[in-house]
Amino acid sequence: MGAGMIRLLQSKPALELVGVFGRRIHDRPVDAGTVAGLGGELGFSVSGDLAALLADTTPDIALQATCSTVVDAEPEIRALLEHGVNVISIAEEMAFPAYSHPQISTSLDELARTRGATLVGTGINPGFVLDLLIVALSGTCQRIDRIEARRVNDLAPYGPTVLACQGVGLTTTQFQEGVLSGRVAGHLGFPESLSMIASALGWQIERIEQRREPIISEVRRQTPHVVVEPGCVAGCLQTAVAWVDGRAAIQLVHPQQIHPQLGGVETGDYIDIEGEPDLHLRIEPEIAGGTATVALAVNLIPRVLQADAGLRTMIDLPVAAALSGSSRRSPAEKNGDSVGE
Amino acid sequence: MGAGMIRLLQSKPALELVGVFGRRIHDRPVDAGTVAGLGGELGFSVSGDLAALLADTTPDIALQATCSTVVDAEPEIRALLEHGVNVISIAEEMAFPAYSHPQISTSLDELARTRGATLVGTGINPGFVLDLLIVALSGTCQRIDRIEARRVNDLAPYGPTVLACQGVGLTTTQFQEGVLSGRVAGHLGFPESLSMIASALGWQIERIEQRREPIISEVRRQTPHVVVEPGCVAGCLQTAVAWVDGRAAIQLVHPQQIHPQLGGVETGDYIDIEGEPDLHLRIEPEIAGGTATVALAVNLIPRVLQADAGLRTMIDLPVAAALSGSSRRSPAEKNGDSVGE
Repeated sequence: MGAGMIRLLQSKPALELVGVFGRRIHDRPVDAGTVAGLGGELGFSVSGDLAALLADTTPDIALQATCSTVVDAEPEIRALLEHGVNVISIAEEMAFPAYSHPQISTSLDELARTRGATLVGTGINPGFVLDLLIVALSGTCQRIDRIEARRVNDLAPYGPTVLACQGVGLTTTQFQEGVLSGRVAGHLGFPESLSMIASALGWQIERIEQRREPIISEVRRQTPHVVVEPGCVAGCLQTAVAWVDGRAAIQLVHPQQIHPQLGGVETGDYIDIEGEPDLHLRIEPEIAGGTATVALAVNLIPRVLQADAGLRTMIDLPVAAALSGSSRRSPAEKNGDSVGE
Repeated sequence: MGAGMIRLLQSKPALELVGVFGRRIHDRPVDAGTVAGLGGELGFSVSGDLAALLADTTPDIALQATCSTVVDAEPEIRALLEHGVNVISIAEEMAFPAYSHPQISTSLDELARTRGATLVGTGINPGFVLDLLIVALSGTCQRIDRIEARRVNDLAPYGPTVLACQGVGLTTTQFQEGVLSGRVAGHLGFPESLSMIASALGWQIERIEQRREPIISEVRRQTPHVVVEPGCVAGCLQTAVAWVDGRAAIQLVHPQQIHPQLGGVETGDYIDIEGEPDLHLRIEPEIAGGTATVALAVNLIPRVLQADAGLRTMIDLPVAAALSGSSRRSPAEKNGDSVGE
């Protein structure tokens, strides 16, 4: 993700990359351009010392792509906010950190306000397709009774870490054991998405139920990193339900597997709202996760620079728009003031 | 639209309706609840005198549903802003008033800032499906080459005024004459939608081309208000193209006709983005225009109350979320601060 962000930032003339921090660095200094697979060098190495980097540079904003949880993300975020640096994090739990860590969230919000900086979590999921997009659609409804949304994707392009987290290649028994032990962690972010939706709609969630079930393949499936024999696990069907006023008001469904088409499944993003009016949205194929998360983090930069200080979520900001590769507009310039007419 | 807004406002406990102004009023006072078709009375009449109404009441916000153009909307908006009243207008041109009337827009922006009020235009189209929703999706893209979006709807539920504007029931010759004379006005709002998209993407529009073409019916179609004989016009196929850097960069297509299924056409909203990645969205059937415009105007109220003073467009504000009918949350309360967890 970090490498993808470096490449995308370099394609946007309005943005200048002034430094890169990495948790895993090489013994010898390596140019950030090399790490990102760019043709040329950027003229600075990937730093393994965030404090030293912040002493040397004064960035307007930092993109965090180092981890998934609030606890893991907090020290880096705190160091950045202390220097008045705005932060966009793609750590899944940071999409709505008040769900898992209300006290840390309050503390980060206070720190951000004190330093005049803005902090927000984003990503395709959580952060967009199963939360912000649902909220945006809800604005066209006079009444909402129930929401069901589904993201069906293909894990085949992913590496061994992601595949292991989803239980790909395991037997059913191994999968069930992995769910219990936590090794089959599945998708991280459903409670955050549900909380974001409920917050926007003014709904009080009574409880959230999550399930992880194996997707059994009838045929052999394989990728460079895993082989799934017939009868074994091709992926994880994860479901989360938010109960509101005694009803299963929001249901999110996320079957992740390798080569879903071998199981007769097409990929896509689906949102169904029951209410006044009903609403049925399909995006086929699904919005590509990696590409879109990198894009959202970069495209959100102007919105965060314009936002009030403090901890924000995706529903608190105007939507991010694709930054033009040819635009020379300053990212701090107010959108809407430069009409192309 | 106004009656629909009254009904929806009455279903939201967090909102209180304090007055109704109407351009066309009856000789004798009529209760606003009666006008809206509510079962009971609201206890106040529809006023035909906006100045007197504003002298009597101090609303936080006003919803304007009286007209379509900036010039027609301006006097009422000005009167409201002078009293420090926030305004949400569903006048089509108010979705992006800087396109058609940059000077009036600047003047209204200055007045709003002076009075500490916010002014924004909204609606399903322009205002949401062919502009804001496209911009929201663009945020997931690393690069955008071309955008095409299409809204296919059914005019059968509409009254004689709308049908006449779309040329329904005319011969092809009458339709062409109507386009030239302006009687077949078609859809109002394409330049506004294109300007909003371009503004968000930082694109400079070189020119906008609009076309209105007759949709010829091969079979007889009819509604309570119009009969279309075979060979005659069932509706208007309107297209607008925005040229950017010498390319037809954004194309919006809006075929509006009665009973499209009699011509083998299903209704829906469609967005196709060519870029990195490509993106294909479908909402079927289309988001119902009247219901959704009323919903957007009402649901936007908390966002406008929270917004900075001045003239805003839909892309400048966080997305509107469906206001809960059972929520007792104050509309002025900050979203995101009342997490249901």
